[in-house]
Amino acid sequence: MIAIKRLSSTDPDFKERLDALLAFEAAQDACVEQTVADILSEVKARGDAAVIEYTQRFDALSANSMAELELSQSELQQALAALPPTQRQALEAAAERVRSYHQRQPLQSWQYEDEGEKTHGTMLGQKVTPLDRVGLYVPGGKASYPSSVLMNAIPARVAGVRELIMVVPTPAGEHNPLVLAAAALAGVDRLFTIGGAQAIAALAYGTQTIPQVDKIVGPGNAYVAAAKRRVYGVVGIDMVAGPSEILVICDGQTNPAWVAMDLFSQAEHDELAQSILVCPDTAYIERVAAALDDLLPTMPRQRVIRAALENRGALIQVRDLDEACHIANRIAPEHLELSMADAETWVDKIRHAGAIFIGPYTSEALGDYCAGPNHVLPTSGSARFSSPLGVYDFQKRTSLIRVSQAGSQTLGRIAATLAYGEGLPAHARSAEYRVES
Amino acid sequence: MIAIKRLSSTDPDFKERLDALLAFEAAQDACVEQTVADILSEVKARGDAAVIEYTQRFDALSANSMAELELSQSELQQALAALPPTQRQALEAAAERVRSYHQRQPLQSWQYEDEGEKTHGTMLGQKVTPLDRVGLYVPGGKASYPSSVLMNAIPARVAGVRELIMVVPTPAGEHNPLVLAAAALAGVDRLFTIGGAQAIAALAYGTQTIPQVDKIVGPGNAYVAAAKRRVYGVVGIDMVAGPSEILVICDGQTNPAWVAMDLFSQAEHDELAQSILVCPDTAYIERVAAALDDLLPTMPRQRVIRAALENRGALIQVRDLDEACHIANRIAPEHLELSMADAETWVDKIRHAGAIFIGPYTSEALGDYCAGPNHVLPTSGSARFSSPLGVYDFQKRTSLIRVSQAGSQTLGRIAATLAYGEGLPAHARSAEYRVES
Repeated sequence: MIAIKRLSSTDPDFKERLDALLAFEAAQDACVEQTVADILSEVKARGDAAVIEYTQRFDALSANSMAELELSQSELQQALAALPPTQRQALEAAAERVRSYHQRQPLQSWQYEDEGEKTHGTMLGQKVTPLDRVGLYVPGGKASYPSSVLMNAIPARVAGVRELIMVVPTPAGEHNPLVLAAAALAGVDRLFTIGGAQAIAALAYGTQTIPQVDKIVGPGNAYVAAAKRRVYGVVGIDMVAGPSEILVICDGQTNPAWVAMDLFSQAEHDELAQSILVCPDTAYIERVAAALDDLLPTMPRQRVIRAALENRGALIQVRDLDEACHIANRIAPEHLELSMADAETWVDKIRHAGAIFIGPYTSEALGDYCAGPNHVLPTSGSARFSSPLGVYDFQKRTSLIRVSQAGSQTLGRIAATLAYGEGLPAHARSAEYRVES
Repeated sequence: MIAIKRLSSTDPDFKERLDALLAFEAAQDACVEQTVADILSEVKARGDAAVIEYTQRFDALSANSMAELELSQSELQQALAALPPTQRQALEAAAERVRSYHQRQPLQSWQYEDEGEKTHGTMLGQKVTPLDRVGLYVPGGKASYPSSVLMNAIPARVAGVRELIMVVPTPAGEHNPLVLAAAALAGVDRLFTIGGAQAIAALAYGTQTIPQVDKIVGPGNAYVAAAKRRVYGVVGIDMVAGPSEILVICDGQTNPAWVAMDLFSQAEHDELAQSILVCPDTAYIERVAAALDDLLPTMPRQRVIRAALENRGALIQVRDLDEACHIANRIAPEHLELSMADAETWVDKIRHAGAIFIGPYTSEALGDYCAGPNHVLPTSGSARFSSPLGVYDFQKRTSLIRVSQAGSQTLGRIAATLAYGEGLPAHARSAEYRVES
C-alpha cells in the first residue's frame, strides 16, 4: 500500500493542508555556495587551466588540454549515424515536431510613424534580434536526457542564435550516444565534455578556448544551479527549476490505470516530485488508489516513485470540476492534465499552468518528448508569473525612437515640463535645446 | 576643467582601457543582506504589525494601523486635479503616448491543428494570459519619479493585469503630488505609503491587509534591490537595474552643446552613471569637451555630474563610424544616441542596445518621458540578453496540447522509444497505454 495523502475540499482545515502540501523551499547549502564561489573565481582568473584541473578532479578524466575535452562535429554525426533506426527515427520525428511548433513563436520587429501633425516624421518601433551566443548545459550520468538537448537547442536555433555551445560532463569518460546524436540533430556548434560549476564559469566568463556566451540555459544539479544564480547579470540564465509536478483533474471516466501511470511518470523523476489527482468522484479516487498499489511493483523505479508519492503526492476529493479548476489555479502546476471527456470546455477556466494536456489521450509524457511545445516549464507555482521556455528566451528587443524636428518641438516641451518636475534640469535642457532649434 | 577620460581606438591598450571603463560590479553588502533577511522574515511571520512597526521606525510615521497607510482613490484623483495645468497636460500627453506604443505589444494566444493524417485532430497552441496581481514599487524622497509610475503601471494595465498595487514610502509623511497624480492617471488600484524591504515583503507574502501579488516591478535603493532578489521565486520580479548609461555616437555635425547636455542628462542621475561619446572627428571631440566645461557651472546638479563624468565618463576617438558601431555592440548600452545626419542607415549595424535614439533631434530625455517606448531598459551590458520592460513582462504563456486518439498512437510510439532510451519507464508506459487503447 502506498501511503499517499487524502484530502477533501470539505475538510475544515483543507486550505491549511493544501498549503502544507505545496510548501517547498529550495534550501541553499552554505557549503555548496562556498565551493561554487571558489570554482567561479578560479575559472575567471585562470581560464582553461582551472577548467582542466576541476575536470580531472571531479570527472576522473585524464585530459591535459582543452582540445581533449572538445568533441568534433564528425564525432557528433557518428553518434547520430550509429543509433538504432527506431531511436533515430523517434529522435528525428521529435526534433521536427518541436521545431515546427517553435517556428510559430518568433517575435518580429515593427515600427510605425506618428500620425499627429505636430509630431510628423517621428518613428517608433522595436527591433528584435537573436542573442549572439548561447551556452547549453546538459547534465551527465543518469539524468543526461537527449530530449532536454532538443528542447533547449531547437528554440535557440529557431531564434537565429549565431553560435550554440553545449557542455556535458562525461564522468570517467563515458559518453551518452543519444545525447550526442541529439546535439547533432539540433545543430549544436561546439561541444565540450565538461560540467559542474566549472563549465558554467567557463561559459559565463570565457576562457582561452571557450568563448563567453550571452545566456546559459539547461538543467543541472545543486552546484550548477548555484553557479547559474551567481553568474546571472554577467550573462542571462533561464529559470532555476524546482522539482517536477503534475496535477491531474479527472471527471472519473478515464481508465484509472492511465491516471495512475501518469502520476507515476512525474514521481519517477525524483523523490521530491509532486503528483496530485483532483476528482469529484469518491469511488473513482479509490480505483486510482488501487491502480497505484497494483502497478507499483511492476515499476523499475518503484523506490523513488513510492517516496515521491508518500512525501508530496495527494488524492484530493472536490465538490465538482469547477472547484477542481479553482484549486488548479491556486496550485499553478507545471503540468496540468484535464482528463475529462469534455476537457476542451474547461481550458478557459485555467489561468495558471505551465502546460495543459487536454483530454484523456494526452498523457503528459507526449509533451515531454514529441508533441511539439517545450518541456521546460515553470515549477513551484511560478506559472503565476512565468512561461515555458521558448524562442522568446533567445531573442531580445531594442526600442527604436526617431523624433523629427517637428516632433522635437512638441515632445521637447512635454519632456522639459516633466523633467523640471522631477528635479532633473539637464534632462529638461537637453530637450529644450531641440525646441529652440 | 572636467577630468574626463580620453581614449582612442588606436591606443595599443585600447581594449584593456575600454574593459576597465566598463567594469562595474554591484557589491553586495553583508549588513544590508542581514537587515533585509530579518525584515522579510518578520513581515512574513507577523504581517501588518511588522509593516507598521518598520514604517514607524524607518519613515518616522506615527501610523498605528494599515488603514492610515492606505490612500483612497479620491486622494489620488484630488492630487491629479490639483496639478498646475501645464504639468497635468504634460503628464496626460506622456501617458497617452506610452499607452499607444505599448498597445502594439501584447502577445496573442494561438492554436493550430496537426495537418498530418496520422495525428489528425491533434491541436497545439499557446494561451496568453495577464498576471492576476502586480506590485509596483516607487521610491520616496528625491528619486520619486512620476514618469517611473507611468512606465511601470501602463504596460501592466495594457496587459490586462486585474489589480495593480503601488507602494511608495512617504518619509515624515511628505507626499509627492506628481507621483500620486501619475498613479491616478495610470489606473493604480490601491496605494500604500510604505517602502523599503518591508513593502517588498508585504507584497511578496501578503499581510492581513495587503494582498499577495504575483510580480513586483519598479526601482529602489540597495535594501529594496536585495529584498527583491530574495523574494524572487515566491513572486516574479523585473530586472535589478545598475547605474544608468548613455553612449552617444556622433558624426561631428551635431551642435556640441546638444551632445554635452545629453551626456549631462545621464550624469546627473548619480555619481556612478556612465556617459560616453564615440566620434571619429578629433576636432569635434574637443568642441564637446569645451562645451562640457562651459556648461557645467550652469547646472544645478554639477557636483554629481562632475563626479560621474570623471569616474566613469569617456570621450573615445575612433577610426570611423563602422568602428563606433562595433564598440557600441561591445558596450551594449542602455541608451544609444545615433547623433548623425544619416543616422537611420546605421541602425542595422547595432545588435545590442536597450533603446536607440535615431538622429540629432532625438535627445535621450524624450525617451525618458514621452516618446512612447519604455524607459526601463537593460543596464551594464545586459542588453546582450535582455529587453526593455514591456507588456510581455505582465503576460505569461501556457502551452496547450490536445492529442487525438489517432495522434496518441503515433506520438505514443515516439515518446515510448525516447523514454525507454532515457531510462524513464513510467513515462514510456503512460504513452503506451494510449497506443494500446
